[in-house]
Amino acid sequence: MRTVTAYAATSATAPLERTTIERRDVGTHDVLIEIDYAGICHSDIHTVRGEWGEIAYPLVVGHEIVGRVSEVGDGVTRHAVGDLVGVGCMVNSCRECEQCRAGQEQYCLEGNIQTYNGTDPADGSTTQGGYSQAVVVNEDFVLRVPETLDTAKVAPLLCAGITTYSPLRHWEAGPGTRVAVVGMGGLGHMAVKIAHAMGAEVTVLSQTLSKKEDGLRLGADHYYATKDPETFEKLAGSFDLVINTVSASIDMAAHLNLLAVDGTFVNVGAPSEPLPVPAFALIPRRISWAGSAIGGIAETQEMLDFCAEHGIEPETELIGAEEINDAYERVLASDVRYRFVIDVATLA
Amino acid sequence: MRTVTAYAATSATAPLERTTIERRDVGTHDVLIEIDYAGICHSDIHTVRGEWGEIAYPLVVGHEIVGRVSEVGDGVTRHAVGDLVGVGCMVNSCRECEQCRAGQEQYCLEGNIQTYNGTDPADGSTTQGGYSQAVVVNEDFVLRVPETLDTAKVAPLLCAGITTYSPLRHWEAGPGTRVAVVGMGGLGHMAVKIAHAMGAEVTVLSQTLSKKEDGLRLGADHYYATKDPETFEKLAGSFDLVINTVSASIDMAAHLNLLAVDGTFVNVGAPSEPLPVPAFALIPRRISWAGSAIGGIAETQEMLDFCAEHGIEPETELIGAEEINDAYERVLASDVRYRFVIDVATLA
Repeated sequence: MRTVTAYAATSATAPLERTTIERRDVGTHDVLIEIDYAGICHSDIHTVRGEWGEIAYPLVVGHEIVGRVSEVGDGVTRHAVGDLVGVGCMVNSCRECEQCRAGQEQYCLEGNIQTYNGTDPADGSTTQGGYSQAVVVNEDFVLRVPETLDTAKVAPLLCAGITTYSPLRHWEAGPGTRVAVVGMGGLGHMAVKIAHAMGAEVTVLSQTLSKKEDGLRLGADHYYATKDPETFEKLAGSFDLVINTVSASIDMAAHLNLLAVDGTFVNVGAPSEPLPVPAFALIPRRISWAGSAIGGIAETQEMLDFCAEHGIEPETELIGAEEINDAYERVLASDVRYRFVIDVATLA
Repeated sequence: MRTVTAYAATSATAPLERTTIERRDVGTHDVLIEIDYAGICHSDIHTVRGEWGEIAYPLVVGHEIVGRVSEVGDGVTRHAVGDLVGVGCMVNSCRECEQCRAGQEQYCLEGNIQTYNGTDPADGSTTQGGYSQAVVVNEDFVLRVPETLDTAKVAPLLCAGITTYSPLRHWEAGPGTRVAVVGMGGLGHMAVKIAHAMGAEVTVLSQTLSKKEDGLRLGADHYYATKDPETFEKLAGSFDLVINTVSASIDMAAHLNLLAVDGTFVNVGAPSEPLPVPAFALIPRRISWAGSAIGGIAETQEMLDFCAEHGIEPETELIGAEEINDAYERVLASDVRYRFVIDVATLA
């Protein structure tokens, strides 16, 4: 066991604060990672505030983790000391079910082990996330991070990147496909970059035009405001694939009407309230409304390599540990372009 | 022009009554069909009662039509006098859009021409349906009906048959796939027969077990009551494809939970009210909720040939014209096993 400094939530309402946590000994197939950077995801905030169910405090969140391997177990073959690596939303899964065998560990039938607030099969403890100096993870759930990318920017790929890459791949975005991205935030800006790099024609649908310049710079071909009712008239039947990154309620009938025949609308953001959807919005053009969760481990590696090949890095704002609580408020106010990354050196 | 006897709705509330209507002259590419049988579809009732929007009365409904060709235009090559033929929900489309060129006339971007209550491009009149002695239809929207099937039973294939065949084909039901059919009515019983013939493992989900014996006889492997909460526990994550034929509101979250990872839930029935669906019911297993409308003309022919090959006929109750109004009440009371067919000879 080793003790490391971390930033933890101690209740649903108190600010996060500096503390220490224990990390388990490095097992045969484990990797010890000295964390350099950790991204702040909206899920972190939902979790620590108990909005997604009761949790045990104190809890350290963070599932966009980048660092260097500083120790490996005897049985480790995938990683070596000094490697630049990453950890995303999962740190293990059952490995035996149909989904795990198919490389879809995110859909493990036994439930994958979340990077924080999960139950670690190694010792039964609650998993603790990336707002900390180090973490011990089974090697199979550790990704290789290409050294060509800016280490201080890359962390959000581990959640925001794979969450948008996976549905774009699964529903075959590419040359000739018309992709719309709803929401221009942490996930949305990654969806724009990745869909553009895949060769799709990309349209951003944002509440207002306030980020239009950014959107076009990051790779969007078109940018429309959803506050303008004309947007829905003009773009009716226009898209093969819509990636909805917004976790607020939206007018589903109006948005589904933007799809072409056989189009798919994919939620990666999850509003807490059910969305009312008329079946007549789906039937007359054989439209699908789907959901998608992160991606598998092999697919996450593929995404990291794809981003390296295309020079795709998240747009980030680097902050110190003391700024985490302010950053949470700014995330909630949509006042971030487009992801906060914590410089973990400031935890010391 | 010719005058034929028909059974028409004269208002949203009055019973249907015997009348006469005009049929246009047989054009170069038209076929005159002397109608032998016409099925009664729930859509007929919705339409004549104005539940799907205002309509012009009098209106003759019926879009499950079987009869024999008695005259053909000079340019007709697909059909000959004496042929047994059928007409379904469409009698024309734009023929030029991407969907028509792909054989998906049901999704014609200009809107296909419905068999009744549409605007006939030939003369601008309102199209009148199959509860009548004869109809004139462009040859390209006339199907060949295999003579090996029972002529008095086959009419419902033109709507109930293709509406269930098309999504089963599109989402690839077959050996190794687990298909559930929600609702054991006119559409549901066809879905059971067709999915079984395709080689899928078929489960019926009906409100009660009252039609269980029928369901198993028609090809279902399993039959469960949705009134029993244990059904939803026992079958969680069990299906690759669900065909929902019910047009009443159902608990979508509970039903979506029956799907396996990457499963698809397809509505062919359309509740008039929006259904509340939590995105969390879709995301954790990459589930899709889709809609599907009838099928294309080539696909409808494929379905008829498939049914002939597998000896699939609808379960029907043959009625005379004087029984149409009673039959409507029995459809609304779900008191039909499983489709009414009008013997059009009784119209005379």
